[in-house]
Formats: sequence, C-alpha cells, structure tokens
Amino acid sequence: MTNRVTQLFKINVPIIQAGMVWVSGWKLASAVSNAGALGLIGAGSMKPDLLREHIRKTASATPSPFGVNIPLLRGDIDDLIAVIQEEKVKIVFTAAGHPGRHVEKFKKFGGIVVHVVANIKQALKAQECGCDAIVAEGFEAGGHNGLDEITTMALVPQIVDAVTIPVIAAGGIADGRGMLAAFALGAEGVQIGTRFAATIESSAHEVYKQKIVEAGDGDTIITYRNILPVRAVKNPFMALVQKEETHKGMTKERMMELHAKGRERKGIFEGNWEEGELEMGQSSGLVHDIVSAKEIVDRIMKEFEETKRRFII
Amino acid sequence: MTNRVTQLFKINVPIIQAGMVWVSGWKLASAVSNAGALGLIGAGSMKPDLLREHIRKTASATPSPFGVNIPLLRGDIDDLIAVIQEEKVKIVFTAAGHPGRHVEKFKKFGGIVVHVVANIKQALKAQECGCDAIVAEGFEAGGHNGLDEITTMALVPQIVDAVTIPVIAAGGIADGRGMLAAFALGAEGVQIGTRFAATIESSAHEVYKQKIVEAGDGDTIITYRNILPVRAVKNPFMALVQKEETHKGMTKERMMELHAKGRERKGIFEGNWEEGELEMGQSSGLVHDIVSAKEIVDRIMKEFEETKRRFII
Repeated sequence: MTNRVTQLFKINVPIIQAGMVWVSGWKLASAVSNAGALGLIGAGSMKPDLLREHIRKTASATPSPFGVNIPLLRGDIDDLIAVIQEEKVKIVFTAAGHPGRHVEKFKKFGGIVVHVVANIKQALKAQECGCDAIVAEGFEAGGHNGLDEITTMALVPQIVDAVTIPVIAAGGIADGRGMLAAFALGAEGVQIGTRFAATIESSAHEVYKQKIVEAGDGDTIITYRNILPVRAVKNPFMALVQKEETHKGMTKERMMELHAKGRERKGIFEGNWEEGELEMGQSSGLVHDIVSAKEIVDRIMKEFEETKRRFII
Repeated sequence: MTNRVTQLFKINVPIIQAGMVWVSGWKLASAVSNAGALGLIGAGSMKPDLLREHIRKTASATPSPFGVNIPLLRGDIDDLIAVIQEEKVKIVFTAAGHPGRHVEKFKKFGGIVVHVVANIKQALKAQECGCDAIVAEGFEAGGHNGLDEITTMALVPQIVDAVTIPVIAAGGIADGRGMLAAFALGAEGVQIGTRFAATIESSAHEVYKQKIVEAGDGDTIITYRNILPVRAVKNPFMALVQKEETHKGMTKERMMELHAKGRERKGIFEGNWEEGELEMGQSSGLVHDIVSAKEIVDRIMKEFEETKRRFII
C-alpha cells in the first residue's frame, strides 16, 4: 500500500502507533516499526536522559523508521528536543501546544514534523508553520483531549477539506473497519493508541492492559472537561472526580490538586485501580485480547482489505 | 442499491431523514421519500391532531414509503400511537424511552419498528423486544443525546458486533464520505438530520437554517450533560446554560426551568437566536448551502459511489 503517508515516513502500511505515556517505550515502538507500521516513543513520561536511552534501544531493535511524540507544554521541552536532535531521530510528533517555534529546528536536520490537532484552526496553523502532516484526533480518543469535543467522524472530513497536507485520523479506531472508515472520510493514515496499549510489548502494567480488555462501550469518561480534558476508564478515582465536577464544577486549582499526583503513572504503570488514571479511548470496547504488536498490525490490514472487498462486489 | 435496510423499508437508497422537531413535517418527509430515501415525520413537536394532518398530507404528496418518529417519553404517547395506527403508517421510529410495551401494538397491524439507541445495552433490549432494526446514534448528533457520550466511530462497530438486526448509523454524517465510513463500520443505512434540516422543504425558520450553514467545526455544544443531554449551536442562551453548568453544576429542577420554556420552538421554528435552542449536530460544519432534499439525496449517493471508487483502484 502506497500513499502520501507511507511515502512520508517510508513505511509499508499507513498505521501509526500513538505515543503514549507509560505505554510506548522502545519495546512497543520497535515492535510496531518492525511490523511495517510506524512506532512512536511516548516522551511524555520520560526525562531527557531516559528518552535518550529509549531512542538508542529502539534504533538497535529495528532497522525501520520510528519517531518520538513530545508534548510541547513540558517545562524541559528544549532539553527533550536537544536529545531528539543529538540522536538524529527524523520523525517527531508534537502535541498539546503550538509547534511553530520548534518546526524550524527540526527541519534544519531534515526532520519530519507532524502535529496533533483537534479542530480546523489548529490544523491550519500547523500547516502554515510547515508541518508535514497532521493527526486529526477526535473526542473518543484516550488521554488528553481537545476542548471542542469534536468527534473523529465530524472532524476528519472538515480538516481534510481545510488543508492540503496529509491527514492522519485518530480516535475510536482499533481495527480495519475503523481504518477504512477513516480513509472514506479522507484520511491517508490512522493513529491508533488504545489497541496498541493492550499488547505484549506495551510497557504498561498488566492490570491496566486487562482493564482495556474488560472495558465496555460506555466505560470511559472525560473529566476536567472545560480545563484540560482527559479520557480514562471510569474507576473509583475518576468517578470521584466526575461527581465533584458535575455537582460543584471544577477549577484549575482543584484539577491540579486532583490530577497532578502522579495519577497517570499510578494508573497505567503501577496498575493502581483505585487511585490512578487509566487513560484509554472509547475504542477499548473493541479490544478483546492482549497480543503482539505485529499481530495487531497484520489483523488491521487484513480486516481493512476484507472490508474494502465488501464494497467492490 | 439493495441491502437489508432498503428491503425492510422498500426504498431505493439506504438513507433515512431523521425525524426532527419543528423541522420535519410533511413537506420534508414527502420530498425525501420522493427522492428514493426514507422521510420521517417528527412527531416530537406535534399534538395528535397535527400529527394526523401531517400524515395525511405526506401520504397525498408521495406514493413512496414514509414513517413517523415518536419520542416515547411523551405524556400523550398512547394518543400519538393511536393516530399512527388509525392512519395506517407502517414505519415507526421510536426514541427516548423503552419500546418494549409498544412494539407488539405496531406489529399487530404489520408495522416496522426501529428504535434509536446510544449504547450496546439499549441495542440488545431493542432487538430482544422485536424491533426490526436500530439506529445507533453517536455523541456528535444534534438534539437529544445519550448519557454515555459514545461517538459514531466507536459505537457503530460495537453495536454491529452485538446484534443481528440491521444497524443504521447516525451522528456526524452529512455527505457520501460519512455514509461510506458508516458502511465500513458495518452499518447498512444512515440516518441524517442536520443536513436535511437545512433544505428548502425543512419547516424550520430561515434564521435557523442559515445558522446551520454558518456553523463551524466547534460551534455546537452539549448542555444538561448528566441529566438529559442536548446538542445545539452555541448561541447566547446555550452559552449562559454552559457557563452555569460549568461553574455551579446542574440540577434537574434548574434544567426544567431553563430548557422547558419552549426553547426548541423558539430557536428552530421562530428563529430566535438570543433565547432559543437551535439544535444541530457537529456535521453542521459540513453544511454549506440550503438546497432541496432531492439534491441532498442525489449528492450523497454520488459522493458515496465516487468515494467507493477510490478504494477499488
């Protein structure tokens, strides 16, 4: 399969594994890249030195292209970028912030920059400042989420109509049917998080992986929705936050109090069901097993082709 | 085009025009049915006698099948159902409530019953009590909305996997790309609201139709979200409700005070931008003109076929 996304990254299939905190280290990223898709190291939960280690290990584990995802709001963002440059990583996905001031740096050493957006305005800005592609991420996605709550089905075609650079769809996609749906909407690639979080190579805790498998259709919720929305599975801690938010409203100060106590690490990496934030998307309802990353890539492409054939007849 | 949905309703194309309060009277329903799709009279804003009038006018205006959509929570639901039976309308879409106690009545005179659902549990219940098909409606849809906030992209494949009766996708679909995406996810039909609300035959106020055309990607919001969620365009009234909800929370009593003052009529039928609720879905960002219902059906099918051809090459 060849299109602008496979050509941009020099990959075999237009599937990108989302960079996920406490989930996508060198093991997952290299396994995905070895399977012909694009693996991303999630730098969001890494200090600069740890990121360097993961980059080096990924490079040793795969001859194929891989990338790094960085949240631009990090206080030490310049140090993270320095590591990426020193280690000569050519593919960078940026999220949560404006990529403008950083794109030029990456371009200087031949880097490819992709920005994650949640509305048309952000998409146009990303295109304007020189990004090579964008990820259009819908409301159903896990983890940090856009304030506008625009879903993948509504967002992707509107962004495709607004920009000329390739659009990668994210949010709610876990199988080949979702991938074909995204392509029907005009996307040329898909970014998949939750499905890859429940793989053997994911560095998350077994309890977290199991909770993805167990989650049903309505089991994730958005909290802090007017401040810094986060989607996670409804567990005792998130239920408590939601209750407070519904009945009293939420302030930034109170959110910092609740959210900032290493909740992501606790939930995803330590498997603390009671007190952690176990971030996952609505597609968790489509995940029924924990298998290898290669098995996921192969399944998605097989189902994508099978679903396509339904339309040809 | 032939599939289980076209066969069930005896229509040419598997497109259903959603029953919409103050929007879909006999003019819109008959125009859609005359175009080969399925038109629905929205009984939600009609007293029984007015519904009877609209049914009779629709029957005179089209030789093709049409249906009625009824919200089951209406106090006079038995009177509405009596009108449908007396007037021998064969297709009924039910929403907002449990269809169980009514399905048998409709079946007695050979009726086809379709229930609108927003999660798997509701879908299974609808199938169990004898519904012929279901509409799986995602969070992006306009008007009344499910409490679980499951989006079309995540909801449709999960429901398709759970039931054996045909699934009609709704929410975020306004063109042939969205229709093909829904089919990729396993739907066999699409229910489209907002796109049909901005047509010449829609009985809504011109101001409301124009606001659909003007709405951008992030211009609709959900309010009363933990009680009885409603999606409408962000206007002065909805902004006020949202602000109160965010900072103080919302109670059922306060919602009744705010919502119940004929807000839908004011917004949709009277075009009152300041004080009304102008219900519309996130697909309003994909609507750029006001044309005839037939033009919409033709465009969607043309784009559906064109998008399909992209995959065949």
